[in-house]
Amino acid sequence: MRNVQQKLAIARGEKPAELLFKNAQLVNVLSGEIHPADVAVEDGRVIGFGDYMAKTVIDLKDAYLAPSLIDGHFHVESSLLTASEFARAVVPHGTGAMVIDPHEYANVLGLDGIRYVLESTKNLAVDFFIMLPSCVPATQLETAGSRLTADDLKLMIADERIAGVAELMNYRGVFLGIESELAKIEAGKGKVIDGHAPGLRGKNLNAYALAGIRSDHESTELEEAREKLRLGMHILLREGSTERNLDHLLPLINAHNSANCSFATDDRLPGDLVHEGHVDHCVRKVIVAGIAPMTAFQIATINTARHYRLRNFGAIAPRYWADFVVFDDLKNFTARQVYKKGVLVAEHGKYLAKSPEATPLPRSTMNVRYDAAKDFTVKANGGTKIKIIKIIPDQIVTKQLIETPKVENGEIVSDTARDILKLVVVERHRATGKVGVGFVRGFKLKNGALASSVAHDAHNVVVVGTNDTDILSAILQLEKLQGGLVAVADGEVKAELGLPIAGLVSDKPLDEVIQHMAGLNAAAHALGTDLAAPFMILSFLSLSPIPELRLTDQGLIDSVYLRHTNLFAAA
Amino acid sequence: MRNVQQKLAIARGEKPAELLFKNAQLVNVLSGEIHPADVAVEDGRVIGFGDYMAKTVIDLKDAYLAPSLIDGHFHVESSLLTASEFARAVVPHGTGAMVIDPHEYANVLGLDGIRYVLESTKNLAVDFFIMLPSCVPATQLETAGSRLTADDLKLMIADERIAGVAELMNYRGVFLGIESELAKIEAGKGKVIDGHAPGLRGKNLNAYALAGIRSDHESTELEEAREKLRLGMHILLREGSTERNLDHLLPLINAHNSANCSFATDDRLPGDLVHEGHVDHCVRKVIVAGIAPMTAFQIATINTARHYRLRNFGAIAPRYWADFVVFDDLKNFTARQVYKKGVLVAEHGKYLAKSPEATPLPRSTMNVRYDAAKDFTVKANGGTKIKIIKIIPDQIVTKQLIETPKVENGEIVSDTARDILKLVVVERHRATGKVGVGFVRGFKLKNGALASSVAHDAHNVVVVGTNDTDILSAILQLEKLQGGLVAVADGEVKAELGLPIAGLVSDKPLDEVIQHMAGLNAAAHALGTDLAAPFMILSFLSLSPIPELRLTDQGLIDSVYLRHTNLFAAA
Repeated sequence: MRNVQQKLAIARGEKPAELLFKNAQLVNVLSGEIHPADVAVEDGRVIGFGDYMAKTVIDLKDAYLAPSLIDGHFHVESSLLTASEFARAVVPHGTGAMVIDPHEYANVLGLDGIRYVLESTKNLAVDFFIMLPSCVPATQLETAGSRLTADDLKLMIADERIAGVAELMNYRGVFLGIESELAKIEAGKGKVIDGHAPGLRGKNLNAYALAGIRSDHESTELEEAREKLRLGMHILLREGSTERNLDHLLPLINAHNSANCSFATDDRLPGDLVHEGHVDHCVRKVIVAGIAPMTAFQIATINTARHYRLRNFGAIAPRYWADFVVFDDLKNFTARQVYKKGVLVAEHGKYLAKSPEATPLPRSTMNVRYDAAKDFTVKANGGTKIKIIKIIPDQIVTKQLIETPKVENGEIVSDTARDILKLVVVERHRATGKVGVGFVRGFKLKNGALASSVAHDAHNVVVVGTNDTDILSAILQLEKLQGGLVAVADGEVKAELGLPIAGLVSDKPLDEVIQHMAGLNAAAHALGTDLAAPFMILSFLSLSPIPELRLTDQGLIDSVYLRHTNLFAAA
Repeated sequence: MRNVQQKLAIARGEKPAELLFKNAQLVNVLSGEIHPADVAVEDGRVIGFGDYMAKTVIDLKDAYLAPSLIDGHFHVESSLLTASEFARAVVPHGTGAMVIDPHEYANVLGLDGIRYVLESTKNLAVDFFIMLPSCVPATQLETAGSRLTADDLKLMIADERIAGVAELMNYRGVFLGIESELAKIEAGKGKVIDGHAPGLRGKNLNAYALAGIRSDHESTELEEAREKLRLGMHILLREGSTERNLDHLLPLINAHNSANCSFATDDRLPGDLVHEGHVDHCVRKVIVAGIAPMTAFQIATINTARHYRLRNFGAIAPRYWADFVVFDDLKNFTARQVYKKGVLVAEHGKYLAKSPEATPLPRSTMNVRYDAAKDFTVKANGGTKIKIIKIIPDQIVTKQLIETPKVENGEIVSDTARDILKLVVVERHRATGKVGVGFVRGFKLKNGALASSVAHDAHNVVVVGTNDTDILSAILQLEKLQGGLVAVADGEVKAELGLPIAGLVSDKPLDEVIQHMAGLNAAAHALGTDLAAPFMILSFLSLSPIPELRLTDQGLIDSVYLRHTNLFAAA
């Protein structure tokens, strides 16, 4: 209490504060005004507004001072970065707090993954709040590294930095009242329960909301978002690297409902974070589109802090953390300076925070078993037609095609002429030896193979290739790297990025990761693909809950009816 | 979980709901729209919107359907009614939930008083959430029935219906960092901490907010409210029986900040509740003043539910309680029907809810000791000038005057000609025998005495009278009644209202209380007063924290400097 009393004495003006931000145009998201203010700061917190004595005075000369921005829903693994390198990417953009769902870590490492995330997100220039992954594994149709039940969630829910239960993607399970799913909602009682229900409407959506789901970030259509908002769901306006819904949803926002909206970026590649931006990109975008700047800042700050109950975040007022963004142009928001708990952590796009000591890495997770290349052969067995997965550029959904395969020596092989390439998924968590083989159209590789240990949601190894030798080389290289992304041709590694942390995340600095990603994309393009983000596309080909056809370590999956299906089409 | 699953089946449309409110114009405070909807209800909760089967269909024929209203801060004792009779007064006005501070019960009965309130507010047609009184006793300058420390608050804070810690009226203690006061804030950690800081501005207000205070209902001036709002305090726009701040504060509200505002009525007499209204009166008033109806309803519902974390209150959406108001005119809001958890509880102003079984009353509290009338005599002792309390009509503050008293037989006596009347306060909790005697101007009684066991904040017995015989009769009558209000003349009771529950609240029905209050006021007027609410004025004359001069059982109080003072003025 001594410390509190000292701060109160400073607030009363009896002792000098550490810092005074003089002559600010304060973006006050609480009173809904921009007003002049001098803001005193002590011990990382705002003390008060007024003419205070201070050890250090920072004259803002009428620059704007806003609370740091908050991302309402993000999977930090999608950046391929550790939390501390992720901070390096987003802090210069004005981000001060994140609500994250460590869904991928949890699929690979279970509770250990969540504990690693809790540990590795401490003491950074961004505060992280964690939603407990609710759908591990995502389905029974692939072999994940772990399984989390409601009882597991209860073990961790009380932690102060756990904000609730993450997106209940098994929305059918929820609206049908499956006990295991309702138990997960119950486990989050008193905290926030996030939803994920793309396209869900009408009575089943009513049931989903009734079960206790209070947010959604999957609306792609305006009327879908409006229906969810009417039903009391907090709307996370998403602008990810691939999922870009902001333009569609903008007309939803008005003065009477914006309190129920937040920005979220969900999945975002490191290059996009650095070059296009983060939540600041959303703020710029909506202001250009005509939303009142005050509303934009509220959506980017206090609304999210309130929904997720991030106490003392999202506004500039006494007792709130001194997380500030200094900027000069309301119509083209660009952070000039960023402060975390009163410390300057970025200026003119340059990251200035010290990195804390590295968190010990979790156990290695590449644990594969297969019988060399012969596991990847597919006997034709007289079948004449096969199902192949067709990629839809810029979308996560796939189509199923029926084609006559190319057969050599009684085995079905890749056919580069018709862009039918072999796709292999190898279980990598428990050395079960499970291998799924199928075929895919859309990569247009003429040579070599691309492999990834990022493969939603179970994150087994997924490889696409023109020949079995390169497919095998790629897998061997991923084993060596303890997970990663690799482009191989003629038995030679053309480019790679090791992802030794759970096979999902690099242990390298931000700029190296961006550089390696560029190298990988260049190598893949050299091998013939014209996909903008071939490794991201590859990583989604195992995603069994999304239509139409997928491949997991358990084989080909009809992801419309969520069941196994045969490679060979009925004649 | 069975029950949840059954409700989900109804939401999915597989089974009929209990109720369907068809053809509503739904006041959707979440999406900020009024839109047509059919609303299904089961087991007291909203199930969903849509074309549902239902056992009972209520065709609203395009009438408006809004969530029931919520009062953000109220002392239910001020109505002189038990909770169940209070419900009778406010439910027909559309009130569905209350945030109450049982400050008066706690001053008399301590934790037992709060337990009585928890018990007696169950299962009513209004839901009650309770803030734990933080200032019992209000000061050391009078003898209260109890004392609550932070440790006491901790005993009760976990209860689901305890929303937090009530108004920290000792605002000096808070901004000065007095440990006992900070400990009370700490006791409320994780719940809501209410403020009370009339006129506090500038650095001391910064300190008050910094200590963790997140609301205020005492702003009387616009700029004061604006400053508090900027500092992150939720603004309770007050419209009580005497404290009427709504008109002054209206210009504060705009689309960007209304989420941080609620309505509160603080103290309201039973007649005002019935005739003028409750929160509905605030809604009407602000709409007439030009506030958008949607904003008015949000201030009256969801904003308050969110601030106090009243889960599933304040909106109409799946999982929320089916607390509805049906009405016909947006510009002159008048509840036609009121539903509580799907049950019709009022129609056309008529209360329809069943009263639950009466809660056992708390122990009796009238415990006085005095030595008949001679305790009330004041020897002149050669003093020539005395301090007298001057009432300011329609305000709580008093003034101090210096006058020459009327002396008879060496004793200072009431002087009706100059309107200087004797005022007596008798301790009534612990039979300490403490009696304070002073003089007051403003009542203009020509005969008799008025007495009250409601006397803020310690609720000792306070009597004003023209002669000691009637003063004594009045006290004797209050003893007989176990507390109450009484008007006496010539040794005869002219009118009375027993308040046997803690000496604060009647055990009688609403209409009887209103009738007795009218009788008391008429009797007081017949005795010569022209005050509109003489008993309310009387009840504030012991309020030691409010300037300038007060009388408690400990004697005359200089309430500017918060210290004892002598009746006799320095020559």
